[in-house]
Amino acid sequence: MKCKRCLEPGIIDIRRHNASFCGDCFLHYCKEQVRKTIKEHSMIFDGEKVLVAVSGGKDSLALWDILLELGYEVDGLYLALGIGQYSQDSHAMALKYAQSKSLKLIEKDVQQALGFSISDSPRIVKRAPCSACGTSKRHFFNSVALENNYDVVATGHNLDDEAAVLMGNVLRWDLSSLSRQSPCLAAGNGFVRKIKPLVRLSEREMAAYCIIKGIDYIVQECPMSKGNRHIGLKEALNAIEDRSPGTKSAFYLGFLSKALDSFKQEENFDFTTLQPCKVCKSPTPSELCAFCRLSKKGPSVVNNR
Amino acid sequence: MKCKRCLEPGIIDIRRHNASFCGDCFLHYCKEQVRKTIKEHSMIFDGEKVLVAVSGGKDSLALWDILLELGYEVDGLYLALGIGQYSQDSHAMALKYAQSKSLKLIEKDVQQALGFSISDSPRIVKRAPCSACGTSKRHFFNSVALENNYDVVATGHNLDDEAAVLMGNVLRWDLSSLSRQSPCLAAGNGFVRKIKPLVRLSEREMAAYCIIKGIDYIVQECPMSKGNRHIGLKEALNAIEDRSPGTKSAFYLGFLSKALDSFKQEENFDFTTLQPCKVCKSPTPSELCAFCRLSKKGPSVVNNR
Repeated sequence: MKCKRCLEPGIIDIRRHNASFCGDCFLHYCKEQVRKTIKEHSMIFDGEKVLVAVSGGKDSLALWDILLELGYEVDGLYLALGIGQYSQDSHAMALKYAQSKSLKLIEKDVQQALGFSISDSPRIVKRAPCSACGTSKRHFFNSVALENNYDVVATGHNLDDEAAVLMGNVLRWDLSSLSRQSPCLAAGNGFVRKIKPLVRLSEREMAAYCIIKGIDYIVQECPMSKGNRHIGLKEALNAIEDRSPGTKSAFYLGFLSKALDSFKQEENFDFTTLQPCKVCKSPTPSELCAFCRLSKKGPSVVNNR
Repeated sequence: MKCKRCLEPGIIDIRRHNASFCGDCFLHYCKEQVRKTIKEHSMIFDGEKVLVAVSGGKDSLALWDILLELGYEVDGLYLALGIGQYSQDSHAMALKYAQSKSLKLIEKDVQQALGFSISDSPRIVKRAPCSACGTSKRHFFNSVALENNYDVVATGHNLDDEAAVLMGNVLRWDLSSLSRQSPCLAAGNGFVRKIKPLVRLSEREMAAYCIIKGIDYIVQECPMSKGNRHIGLKEALNAIEDRSPGTKSAFYLGFLSKALDSFKQEENFDFTTLQPCKVCKSPTPSELCAFCRLSKKGPSVVNNR
């Protein structure tokens, strides 16, 4: 197929748009999809400073790159999770991209702050590693942004990620999670604004973006996530998408335009019940925030043995 | 595993309930699931006459059998759809069950009423055969019940069917269909009550019910439905269920208990706009009902050629 935009030979087909693009026009398409998403959901305002959470994977590096191309002021945040070789390789990729463009990359050692690595967390907290990892990420994305005066934290969740999370929430009719599944969570009550500007672009498109731009990224998926529920949901959605291209984006984008508001009406979280965590000052409904409760489990449990 | 109820050796495992049953206790389990569904959704009241739509497949024959076992007064309705050998075989199975128990089976020839068979419908109406089939079934289920003074029409839709339909509605966020996806549609405005008492039981369980009870049924799926979207959704749900038993029933039953009401609030169909069809008197928002519009296409289109 010819490129939809310039009619030169296409190198990538996008079945859900029934379109093909050449390399340059594909990069343009990705940028425009992100520009559209940012505008539609009022994600970034003029003069705001953005902190992008960088894992060294294709999505977060492509996001950083696209946001810079769109003219935003963006620094990176890398969290060292202590997942063996995977963490070492992902760190190398994040650093390589930052250095190649002389960008600022803030680094935080989660293992040090927590008292144990994410790999060790199942043994210590008796829960899947993704649980401790999610808690740590939410904690540091917010606290690092606030400490360093960033207005927005951007994460590289793409269409496949968000559609799979939505599917999980719908399969359980988890009304509380559904009411909050927006690509832009407003700032306030001790939280910085959180945005997901890649929700109109697929996993495959983000890999293609990095390859075309020559951005090295860690191809390996996190070894801790093997066999988790999220991956099963992605496979099921891929099977449906394969039969009917466009189903995945209609599902996720249709949720945003047609259903999210009614779920929001059902769920009204009372932000007045939040207070600063006694240890780290992060907003929390309890005395200690989830991250500080988690980090307390580490050394004491280990020492008690 | 031992039978959950009587501790004799089990012959069928039901993973989502983490249970096994012997033959007798499995039949008891099926009946109780239907009894519970009927009670929960106020499907049938004392003294009411039920018309069960019978295709000759496992679901509709098991439904007829269970409703009789539960003490209801139930006759059958068989629609001749004109789908070659499949229709002949399905008719034979419906008739065999009815005769074996001296039950009343009303028969309607859809092909004759429509002027063409469901197999020929794609050529005549330029739509998938399932479209003409659905229109015809909705029409005759209602009109035959009203003409013969039945209070309720029962159909054999099982958990797998309803979960797949729900998934299709959710993937498109078809709010109008979601607002009506109840296993019990109230009577009124020219419509008889429609019920789906098998929604707590799976396809596999209905096959097992027929086998244990010695009920012959047509195993072949309708040849017209091959490759349709619904079957793809069933496969995707089966893949998810396989990894996490119970997901399918949590999805469907959770929808009924947690989400259906809020979709109902969003959608308010105005029944006062309905009028009797000029030809057949069925309730319709247009001059002619969908079935009469369909049947008009037949001979005239063919003659015009």
